[in-house]
This record gives sequence, structure tokens and C-alpha cells, in this order.
Amino acid sequence: MVKHFSSEAIAAMEKQTRVHLINSLGGFKSVALVGTSDPEGNNNLAIFSSIFHIGANPPLMGLIFRPTPPERNTFNNIMETGYYTFNHITEAIFKQAHQTSARYDKEVSEFEKTGLQPEFKEGFHAPYVAQSTIQLGLSLREKVDIAINNTTLLIGEIIHLYVPENCLCEDGFIDLEKANTITCSGLDSYHKTVQLDRLSYAKPDLAVRSIKS
Amino acid sequence: MVKHFSSEAIAAMEKQTRVHLINSLGGFKSVALVGTSDPEGNNNLAIFSSIFHIGANPPLMGLIFRPTPPERNTFNNIMETGYYTFNHITEAIFKQAHQTSARYDKEVSEFEKTGLQPEFKEGFHAPYVAQSTIQLGLSLREKVDIAINNTTLLIGEIIHLYVPENCLCEDGFIDLEKANTITCSGLDSYHKTVQLDRLSYAKPDLAVRSIKS
Repeated sequence: MVKHFSSEAIAAMEKQTRVHLINSLGGFKSVALVGTSDPEGNNNLAIFSSIFHIGANPPLMGLIFRPTPPERNTFNNIMETGYYTFNHITEAIFKQAHQTSARYDKEVSEFEKTGLQPEFKEGFHAPYVAQSTIQLGLSLREKVDIAINNTTLLIGEIIHLYVPENCLCEDGFIDLEKANTITCSGLDSYHKTVQLDRLSYAKPDLAVRSIKS
Repeated sequence: MVKHFSSEAIAAMEKQTRVHLINSLGGFKSVALVGTSDPEGNNNLAIFSSIFHIGANPPLMGLIFRPTPPERNTFNNIMETGYYTFNHITEAIFKQAHQTSARYDKEVSEFEKTGLQPEFKEGFHAPYVAQSTIQLGLSLREKVDIAINNTTLLIGEIIHLYVPENCLCEDGFIDLEKANTITCSGLDSYHKTVQLDRLSYAKPDLAVRSIKS
């Protein structure tokens, strides 16, 4: 049996139930740890599932912030320093990654509280997570205010990228399963994946075929 | 061994290699079929992996369009009619879903070419995909131009939602694995998932625990 929810039914839901429901609807999500430092060098780490691809040239990623976010430290650090990192989450660290969503005081480092290790390299201002297999260093390029619900979209350019060599395929594709990257759904559910296939570039009168290596 | 790519190394890559690489970097992505009709009632269907959650109240989803998109029909139909659908992709239909990315002429319906079935209900202008287990009906609310690379973000409000009852958990969470929803990575790789756990709401001095039902 399929259940239908109208606008009115969604609006009438208990708040926390609606938050769980609507956060589940897009499907499985990109999830990563966002690392920042304030101008004094205090490190901050927070988990985000509102990360998405915006373009390949220049290489741009988007990140959505809620209006009065618990993750305000991350937002302020990015606005003040211009730099942040995305760090993929693996099965080995997903509980620690989830723990970073607790509302720690500003002077508390989520790195210390969770046992995740900050890693600095190439003179980049923001910390990477040493346990992450794939790490991105971003430089803030554009801030977009979304009027309808007072959220903010920050767009960053990838200026550093670290990927295990054995995950890099010849055509540029990265084998995220080999990197142990996981995905999430809703607010609190974590999943590993099993590849079904890679498919050829689709053309109008040609059946797609497997290009899995 | 970890490979480091600088901005310069990314910029110097062959175009298609860079597109594969950068599209892989965010992690696993939400992927869905977007259904539209033009004002004359011609149906269009296209796969998108640039879908993300923007807010729960009102329930809002974002969708990124490239500057000169092959998916121009989808964009025009949304701008002209104001309505569109998101339809989750399952293991049973992922090859047909991928095939919708072929550059069909405007008068060709991807539904007919792929064997996916259009479904109309509740007087909604845009077609759902009958084979999809989770279906969303959206109404366009905001168009945001992203200056840095001429992409466009369309924000829609979920005004209809169809979910199998057995996938709905008591707290509002939707069990996407029960709905057979899949995820994607890069441009062409499809994956099913295996849940690791659901974790409790994180608090500063409390270890997270499993809330998997």
C-alpha cells in the first residue's frame, strides 16, 4: 500500500517527524566531515549531508547552511578565513563522525572529543581528517542567500585533492567503494554500498552497456 | 599511496577525465528521474544526480542545472508550467533511468523510448514514473542564478508525496533500502546499499548508540 501525503498533511505533521521524513526524501546523500580553523587556529569539525557537485571546470562544490545552525562555528570560520576541507567518512569512523554533530561549545575541538586526527599539509589553513581516505581542500568562491527559507549556499573551489592511487580509474572515475566511502540517509542512518554497474554514455538509439572494469 | 592534485593539476587535466574525477568527489549522490510535461502535454523524463535537501518546513528540494544543459527540455518545462516530479530509481530500472540521459529530440518522449510508464494523479500537471516506489510532486518556488559558473539552482516545494507504507518508520524516517532506492557515484556508476546503523541524536558527553529498529 502506498501512502499519499499532501502539502497540508506534511505541514500538519509533528515537527521532528517532518524533519526525519523530508530529510529522507531525496534519497541517499553525500556526507562528509567539514574541517575549519578560526583565525586563532582553533580547529572545528562537523558532519554535513548537504554537499553537492556544482561544476567540474572550475571544480566547485556546494554546501547548504541552515538559518540558525548549530554548525555556526563552521560557517563563521569559512567566512572569516575563506578555507575549509571535505573529508570522506568510512565505516571505521562513522560513529565518531556522527558525534561531531553534538552541540559542543565553541572552544571545544570536535577532533579532541571524537579521537579524529587533524592533519595539516601544503600550508593549507584548514585541517583535514587524517583517518579520511579522500580529502578535499576548498577555497570559498561565492555565497548565495536563499530567500525562501533563509538558508545559505556556500560554493567553494577544490584547490587541493588527495585520493588513494588505487581508487583512481584511468578515465578519471574514483572508485569510492575501494576508498570505503559511505553514504547516509535521513538524519542519522549510515550505509555502505555495493556497485550494481557502471554504464556507457547513453545515446538515443543504442542500448547502454556495462563499462565496469 | 595517496595522490595529491593541486588546482593547477586539476585545470590541466583532459576535459572528460576532469568531469569524471570531479563528479566522483562529493561521494555517493541522490539520484532520481525528473518528470515534466510541456504546456501541450508532451512528457519528458531525465535522470539527475544534482538533487539535495534544502529545508523541511516548508519541505524544499534543490536541483542544479548546467549552463547549456542537454536537459534543457526539463528546465524549460519547469519554468513554463511550474511543476515537476522526482522519482526514486530502483535496481529494476537503473539501466532505463540511465538511458534517459541520451540526447533525444524534444518531440521524443523518454518514457516511450525506455519503457518507463508515465503516471498522472491528483490532477498534478507533471508525470510520475509508475515503476518508482517513492514519488514526489514539486511546485517551483525559487530560481537562483549561480554567477561563478552560470549554473541555475531551482528550488521546489514538495506538495505531493507517495511512499510505500511499509517503508515509513514511526519517527518519520523512511527506510530507503526497503523501497529499493539506489544511489550513484560519478557520472555513470550505480550502487545499492547496506545499512550500517542508525545512530541516536548526538550530545556532547554521551556516546552515540544504535537506534536501528
